[in-house]
Amino acid sequence: MRTVEWIDGRVRMIDQRKLPLALVVVEFDDYRDVALAIQNMTIRGAPAIGAAAAFGLALAAQHSRATSREGLLADLEVAAQTIRATRPTAVNLSWAVKRMMRTAQAETGEIVPALIAEAQRIADEDVEINRRMGAHGAALIQDGFNILTHCNTGSLATVDYGTALAVVRVAHEQGKRLHVWVDETRPRLQGARLTAWELMQAGIPMTLIADNVAGHLLRTGRVDIVLVGSDRTAANGDVANKIGTYKLAVLARENGVPFYPVVPTSTIDLSLPSGDDIPIEERDAREVTHVDGCQIAPDGVRVLNLAFDVTPHRYVTGIVTENGIAYPPFSVSLRRMVRG
Amino acid sequence: MRTVEWIDGRVRMIDQRKLPLALVVVEFDDYRDVALAIQNMTIRGAPAIGAAAAFGLALAAQHSRATSREGLLADLEVAAQTIRATRPTAVNLSWAVKRMMRTAQAETGEIVPALIAEAQRIADEDVEINRRMGAHGAALIQDGFNILTHCNTGSLATVDYGTALAVVRVAHEQGKRLHVWVDETRPRLQGARLTAWELMQAGIPMTLIADNVAGHLLRTGRVDIVLVGSDRTAANGDVANKIGTYKLAVLARENGVPFYPVVPTSTIDLSLPSGDDIPIEERDAREVTHVDGCQIAPDGVRVLNLAFDVTPHRYVTGIVTENGIAYPPFSVSLRRMVRG
Repeated sequence: MRTVEWIDGRVRMIDQRKLPLALVVVEFDDYRDVALAIQNMTIRGAPAIGAAAAFGLALAAQHSRATSREGLLADLEVAAQTIRATRPTAVNLSWAVKRMMRTAQAETGEIVPALIAEAQRIADEDVEINRRMGAHGAALIQDGFNILTHCNTGSLATVDYGTALAVVRVAHEQGKRLHVWVDETRPRLQGARLTAWELMQAGIPMTLIADNVAGHLLRTGRVDIVLVGSDRTAANGDVANKIGTYKLAVLARENGVPFYPVVPTSTIDLSLPSGDDIPIEERDAREVTHVDGCQIAPDGVRVLNLAFDVTPHRYVTGIVTENGIAYPPFSVSLRRMVRG
Repeated sequence: MRTVEWIDGRVRMIDQRKLPLALVVVEFDDYRDVALAIQNMTIRGAPAIGAAAAFGLALAAQHSRATSREGLLADLEVAAQTIRATRPTAVNLSWAVKRMMRTAQAETGEIVPALIAEAQRIADEDVEINRRMGAHGAALIQDGFNILTHCNTGSLATVDYGTALAVVRVAHEQGKRLHVWVDETRPRLQGARLTAWELMQAGIPMTLIADNVAGHLLRTGRVDIVLVGSDRTAANGDVANKIGTYKLAVLARENGVPFYPVVPTSTIDLSLPSGDDIPIEERDAREVTHVDGCQIAPDGVRVLNLAFDVTPHRYVTGIVTENGIAYPPFSVSLRRMVRG
């Protein structure tokens, strides 16, 4: 099944908080539950939450009690605000919401089926885009490569197939022998919980490491390329991604290892001149002080739990998109990629 | 109480695996239990395990059934081998064992009381040395500093007072306002469990972060100095310390932030020309796949769990010892520090 899909008028998704110990599927028919699922990370990953947001708006339209076109659009505006407010860093959320609202406003006939169809298109396009990113990026992977990755950029981060992990999948399908170092990715452990699980399911050789180990592997020549995702990329090529990405980029450059974000053009925000303006989400202290039920820090400890960081473009070797690979100067090349 | 001490013919230590939720004290009268406690990290921290090893040998002598001097020395040799084999990276273990064995061999009278006295001296000297390191290092700390630290280098890593945290303690006692960013330090979480607890006990302002956050704080100007410990320092200034230290050194230099290991001269190994020759301990996968009882990775996942990394000396601003601060070229300055 896909990470998130529309089934019989309901939104169905994998509860990613339960993996890898259990594969639990949840269904929603209220957009507010979809918003909560995005906020509490039942579903996460920039492309996946974009699609979830779109399906959430389709739900809002379907269940609106408005009797006029204006009333329905007003209800949708309320839903859009709720959904947009769940997570501030990834741009897909506002991108998908904007696209859905434009569809509603432009529709002269029945708005509800038009929104359901548009959300479905967003989901289907995501899968198609991921396959194209995988094909472009796989050209970077040589036989025998050791690939280092961070967080989860696989099927679970998208509707299906993945972003950075799509590159790994395509290279693996091409018969290249490869091995993936998987950062566990504290505090939410998306690497340990999700990426390790996906790669094991796919039969792709991998080794799980604590985030602290990556630098040592880069220094000792055991990594050939670093592949990550991006939640928002600025016009100059600065990349906002899961906290800890910046350090990988610096350590990769320090050790002569190429560093490539793999990003759908829907996550490139040309309206932002640089990454300095990307808001960084701060999440609950409990994600750091507790792992599942286990308390690992003193009662009442002060915590700073930042979910993302920004990697300045000077550390970025190239940016893989569905339209090809952008190289510096990114202020020129990214614009070309977005135009397709 | 001290982290490890000799009480009425027994070795008493804090069980560091139970902190911060409980302060549990354990006592041993068999050296093999002391060796196991070092191996399973009931006690950890290079200076602390040096003292524990010394007390362990005192126990071995006290309980030896040998009836001759030669028999006792042979029993001690067996105990020394067991204790030395527990952890390969820190040099204090072999340093303390060597010092105890020399004392035994040189003693012409009663060996048992001589060894107990020597172990006690090692423990007392550690506290004295830590206070001196603290005093030297505190000169680096200005009022208002934000200090970033990794793992635990506090009282619990030593017999008392700490290494890098001794610098923080002395600066705090001097009335300087300061704040400490505490890396949680996966996989064993010594930062979250031990350093956070110690700083809170001491009333020193601190904030706990996932290891992935440190780079972002360094990049955004929120760190003034990085202070770490070292389990073994080579003659050229290469530093072996808790996994993740290397990345901090690179990120500090990249952002113009000074990086200082704080190390007793007993951890400086002048017999090693460089850090390339320091053995890196690999520990059990379960430290990564489980946090206390909670499983966080798929069944059967492959893991690489390295306990230490090596930071090349070119990233090291200076090395604080009990005899002063060594600056490059370390091949000259460290030799001077060791001679005192």
